[in-house]
Amino acid sequence: MQTVVHLVSADETEQQTALNIVRNLVEDESGTIDDVAVVAQAGGIERVTTREDEGEEVENLLADGVEFKACSNTLQMKGLEESDLVGGIETVPEGAVEVTRLQTEGYAYIRP
Amino acid sequence: MQTVVHLVSADETEQQTALNIVRNLVEDESGTIDDVAVVAQAGGIERVTTREDEGEEVENLLADGVEFKACSNTLQMKGLEESDLVGGIETVPEGAVEVTRLQTEGYAYIRP
Amino acid sequence: MQTVVHLVSADETEQQTALNIVRNLVEDESGTIDDVAVVAQAGGIERVTTREDEGEEVENLLADGVEFKACSNTLQMKGLEESDLVGGIETVPEGAVEVTRLQTEGYAYIRP
Repeated sequence: MQTVVHLVSADETEQQTALNIVRNLVEDESGTIDDVAVVAQAGGIERVTTREDEGEEVENLLADGVEFKACSNTLQMKGLEESDLVGGIETVPEGAVEVTRLQTEGYAYIRP
Repeated sequence: MQTVVHLVSADETEQQTALNIVRNLVEDESGTIDDVAVVAQAGGIERVTTREDEGEEVENLLADGVEFKACSNTLQMKGLEESDLVGGIETVPEGAVEVTRLQTEGYAYIRP
Repeated sequence: MQTVVHLVSADETEQQTALNIVRNLVEDESGTIDDVAVVAQAGGIERVTTREDEGEEVENLLADGVEFKACSNTLQMKGLEESDLVGGIETVPEGAVEVTRLQTEGYAYIRP
């Protein structure tokens, strides 16, 4: 099974819940989760910048095979550069299109 | 591809993110998004009333082909009339049933 | 049709919206909703404890056939016991895996 987690909220508690859920999906012992993706956009995008990822949680999740995709529209609106993102994060033109594409491919959607 | 955006939050930032995402889906240059629907219910419904749509964003999205559906159960609970909605918005008996129906038909779901 | 409602928010208004939506799905007069499940995790889990369910809303929804599943990872993180949950609620090892499984089986997802 495959899951996309939408990191869209500016709320820090919701952002932390999102990362906890991603961690739990990665470590799931049922062995039924094959792929986990995170799409970061709107208020959620700061959490995947180097400035906010102090505990290296995003970096560690990337190392564990989670795909992170950041919305270029959001970067532009917030005056952020790709170089502000944690290394290894891809950008996509529009996060909502990517979330749609992943669901259409069969990913389940979770918005913490 | 098709996407339903759930306008369910009373939070104004989340409501604005929802409308921004709808706009970005409509203007998406990949040409892969065929239909965009918005289901407004609970705390999200005020945003699709004439009183709240000061910038005419909802009106403009309707003109660009986005389908807006407002939950009749919510209108009743909040003492709102259909005539309070921006013109061109359909009502559905229950927003959550409509969201379910759309996903069952193949729409991806986004809750900003 | 089948719907899973994700009770994941710590916000009491969002929790109440979630329960209202579940109630409306159960009472839907279109007769198109066959199954409703609720997965409670993270900040949403308190709402399904006996301490928080003062109005017995969760208890009544269980009696009406709604399946409630509580995340064991969350119980552990919050120092809660299964006996703190409203009677009749099952536990699952990880809520996000359960939400993924249900969507993969065809359930629509709603996050109020």
